[in-house]
Amino acid sequence: MSRVTLIGAGPGDPDLLTRKAWRLLSLADVVLHDALLDVEGMKEAAPHAQWVYVGKRLGRLSVEQEFICRLIVSYAKQGLNVVRLKGGDPSIFGRMAEEIAACQAAQITVEVVPGITSACAAAAQLQTSLTLRGVSRSVAFVTPRVGKRLTDTDTEWLAVSLAANTVVLYMASAQSQTLGQQLIAGGKSSETPVCVVENASLEGACLHMTLRELADNALPDLPGPVLLMLGEAFSSANQTHLEERAQLCAIGS
Amino acid sequence: MSRVTLIGAGPGDPDLLTRKAWRLLSLADVVLHDALLDVEGMKEAAPHAQWVYVGKRLGRLSVEQEFICRLIVSYAKQGLNVVRLKGGDPSIFGRMAEEIAACQAAQITVEVVPGITSACAAAAQLQTSLTLRGVSRSVAFVTPRVGKRLTDTDTEWLAVSLAANTVVLYMASAQSQTLGQQLIAGGKSSETPVCVVENASLEGACLHMTLRELADNALPDLPGPVLLMLGEAFSSANQTHLEERAQLCAIGS
Repeated sequence: MSRVTLIGAGPGDPDLLTRKAWRLLSLADVVLHDALLDVEGMKEAAPHAQWVYVGKRLGRLSVEQEFICRLIVSYAKQGLNVVRLKGGDPSIFGRMAEEIAACQAAQITVEVVPGITSACAAAAQLQTSLTLRGVSRSVAFVTPRVGKRLTDTDTEWLAVSLAANTVVLYMASAQSQTLGQQLIAGGKSSETPVCVVENASLEGACLHMTLRELADNALPDLPGPVLLMLGEAFSSANQTHLEERAQLCAIGS
Repeated sequence: MSRVTLIGAGPGDPDLLTRKAWRLLSLADVVLHDALLDVEGMKEAAPHAQWVYVGKRLGRLSVEQEFICRLIVSYAKQGLNVVRLKGGDPSIFGRMAEEIAACQAAQITVEVVPGITSACAAAAQLQTSLTLRGVSRSVAFVTPRVGKRLTDTDTEWLAVSLAANTVVLYMASAQSQTLGQQLIAGGKSSETPVCVVENASLEGACLHMTLRELADNALPDLPGPVLLMLGEAFSSANQTHLEERAQLCAIGS
């Protein structure tokens, strides 16, 4: 019977795949994967499978999502054991709904294996809780959309980012200054601690600043995926670790 | 050198520990663990370690947190390899900050290994994205505090729950009716889909309803940890799977 497994690959470190993910990968005939941070390390789980890169290029998302869905169904209908390996957790900014719908339409059984979302990996390396007793009882993961026109939709990200105690902005580094400015204009304290983490779980930049500094300065060019994390919870972020990483990357020097 | 590893055990299924967590567990001399859903399964990672239950009883959290911190430091100072195994992800409602601070004060090196938070595991079994293109660009994890007195603090959970597209309420099932009523009073559509998931990743109840139904009816008594998940993203929750689980558990019949 045709079968597809959607697996969360976690933030990048192959060691942060779950045991279940690793085992199911080892049974795969074909692995359709995103742009993952250490795909070579992950291939050790299934060295004899066919690994097919289906990462998206910016600007043609919809067309390519449809293509990925067709590819998944096509491989599964050949009777192959198909794994769709997605960065992070598939339920968080992972667009798994389209892929599940395509499989269901083709009568293909789907299983989903959750993964570590990069916010949790970044918190682990910062040794900082996203929620913190007496400080933060809520954490929101948000993809902001900052258009030139401010329609209602465009302010949704801001409302939740102002209401949540801790906020993690995914896929947002290109707009970091605008986001910082809008958060301050919306009433977030300009002294709110901010951590900028690139390549969570692997080597990358890790910067610590205030929201005012985020708003006032362009970030350095960071090639890897970046999280903007903000809230009082980060005032206790492991400074030593931050400094080590900053030195490692020679960014911000 | 004294060393402590804080490990996220994930939602319950031992198969959802990361490979790193499992390997570091296998090196432990002593494992201080919470009330985990399948601790026997996890013991297979470290069958010769000393497993010490330090789960908290309701109502004495602060005293017991202090006791746990002292215990961690005491074992580490004996030169033992200490693992502190926490349910879910340690950065999300995991109170890891106190334990890290205690270790730092005692000059003990800490490493944190992230885990799958139960919201992601629940989304995987529902086969539903927490974020959904065109529907949800934000997800908030919240612990509501509903007091009899409505102070400013008490409404923080409501503000973020109203602003976020998708909301996951942790440790909230005892207050489910009040929460539902306050969300509707605050302006959340009474038709908002709600999923109630017990024991995410393992067998447990899984109920599907509207926010109005949540507000109008007491939940059945569910012994395991429960998530209240709400938002339009859940309108596509896997009904078949929900029904299977409902039958399995004979709840809601």
